[in-house]
Amino acid sequence: MAVADTNAEIDFAKYVKEKNAAIEQALSDSVPTIYPERLHESMRYSLLAGGKRIRPCLAIAACEMVGGAQEVVMPTACALEMIHTMSLIHDDLPMMDNDDFRRGVPTNHKVYGEEMAILAGDALLSHAFEYIARETKGVPAEKILRVIADVGKCVGSEGLVGGQVVDIESEGLAMEGKPVSLETLKYIHAHKTGALLETAVVSGAILGGGTEEDIERLGKYAYDIGLAFQVVDDILDCTATSEELGKTAGKDVAVGKATYPSLLGLEESQRIADELIKSAKEQLSVYDQKKAAPLIGLADYIKNRKN
Amino acid sequence: MAVADTNAEIDFAKYVKEKNAAIEQALSDSVPTIYPERLHESMRYSLLAGGKRIRPCLAIAACEMVGGAQEVVMPTACALEMIHTMSLIHDDLPMMDNDDFRRGVPTNHKVYGEEMAILAGDALLSHAFEYIARETKGVPAEKILRVIADVGKCVGSEGLVGGQVVDIESEGLAMEGKPVSLETLKYIHAHKTGALLETAVVSGAILGGGTEEDIERLGKYAYDIGLAFQVVDDILDCTATSEELGKTAGKDVAVGKATYPSLLGLEESQRIADELIKSAKEQLSVYDQKKAAPLIGLADYIKNRKN
Repeated sequence: MAVADTNAEIDFAKYVKEKNAAIEQALSDSVPTIYPERLHESMRYSLLAGGKRIRPCLAIAACEMVGGAQEVVMPTACALEMIHTMSLIHDDLPMMDNDDFRRGVPTNHKVYGEEMAILAGDALLSHAFEYIARETKGVPAEKILRVIADVGKCVGSEGLVGGQVVDIESEGLAMEGKPVSLETLKYIHAHKTGALLETAVVSGAILGGGTEEDIERLGKYAYDIGLAFQVVDDILDCTATSEELGKTAGKDVAVGKATYPSLLGLEESQRIADELIKSAKEQLSVYDQKKAAPLIGLADYIKNRKN
Repeated sequence: MAVADTNAEIDFAKYVKEKNAAIEQALSDSVPTIYPERLHESMRYSLLAGGKRIRPCLAIAACEMVGGAQEVVMPTACALEMIHTMSLIHDDLPMMDNDDFRRGVPTNHKVYGEEMAILAGDALLSHAFEYIARETKGVPAEKILRVIADVGKCVGSEGLVGGQVVDIESEGLAMEGKPVSLETLKYIHAHKTGALLETAVVSGAILGGGTEEDIERLGKYAYDIGLAFQVVDDILDCTATSEELGKTAGKDVAVGKATYPSLLGLEESQRIADELIKSAKEQLSVYDQKKAAPLIGLADYIKNRKN
């Protein structure tokens, strides 16, 4: 986590630290090492490989902000992390991005083989839905169904997968000299990264007992921070050093990938990121600011992050 | 479909034909060609590639037998076919079984590329759960959640994927000269093929308003026919000609794969298949035999099939 620049960020960092142990425990419990063991080990290897757990944190923070208890949203929080993990495992495959390392350790297929990596991803994806349906307690069944429908949409052809396909197609077009439009770039960002963040927040609001107005406000907040996250990512790729990023800087520019700075320039990109964060925080202005502190802090964290 | 040998089989063949148009229409409606078009085309290419639609038929037949209408189970029937299709697309990939053709047409990755095939499978899998949650009408939400949990389990590490992993591991052990036990073979069959058939029948019974007794009986029926299906498959691989099968006969023997005949002999395998079908039909004996006719007919069809 970057050094906190604001009080809100300090609150967020504290919140994340406070929730972290419960999230890690819940994730570990969600995929026990049962028969067939090697499959479950492969699932656990990637699911428990660390990371910031932004999606579970967002789901819990939204749930608590509207007055719900952490327990009602925890199965969904775990499910979102299972889905995120599935997308990383499949993305890293040789036929996709062909990455050998992730977060400093060998990728799933390097350890367990490509067949197992495909199957572990498929198992995590189906387990996610089973887990929400079976483990969510103390919430009306209709609300759980709504969350399942939302989660399904955010992963599939109109969500994360849709964003990945448009990204792949755009790279192909770019190589033929056909530039990517801002509209397409926005679609890619909003779907590849935004959809899952948005669903995390919205699921938390639904399961926590939020009103339709809460759900709508938090959905807008999440859309804005999701897009801001990617715009800042694009900016950091141009401005940060590899040392700061912990990965190769300037990679987007090197491969001729469309980014916010490449389409609009650095200054305009920074202005857009600031606007998005401001707009996100405005959605939270109607709430008790103490209760909204983790979500406000996350917005600041995204704006100010250095890696 | 094989030539019908019994009246029950004739009833089943009529039933399948009668339901087929509705199932094909529902499947086509379930994945429209929207943006990004090529992804949706890839999903539709495999989903609408024909096949016997055994899983949707089973779900509808079970639903109708306990007194439910076709409409309440149709979204789940489509979802089961999406999941079956996903498993075929991923299985056919070069890193898995490396098949270029399925049902006489090029496999998904041969037409759309490996990246798209992985992603189309992922999208079909997540869409399946979204579709059940969003489109099932006229059934209490608790029952829909139960179906989603069952479907998730039947695909994941304790279902279809679990069966595939044990199958792959067993092949590896067989090549090292370590024979596969009957117990392991039963696990593979029950999970790779049986789980989805069982869930089709059980989902139909739940959504159609069946009692707990109905659900249990139909679950046993489905377990038996699912296992019988595989035992007969193993037998046909030894006894039928390639022409009859429409695929290479003797393939299991050639690759040294464990089968019921290789472990128990042909005669004992046939006896087991007959026992399983008899046991499956016994579960249906308490019902109005006219209403149970499609499910009885399916059992006979599995026993007598020639390909």
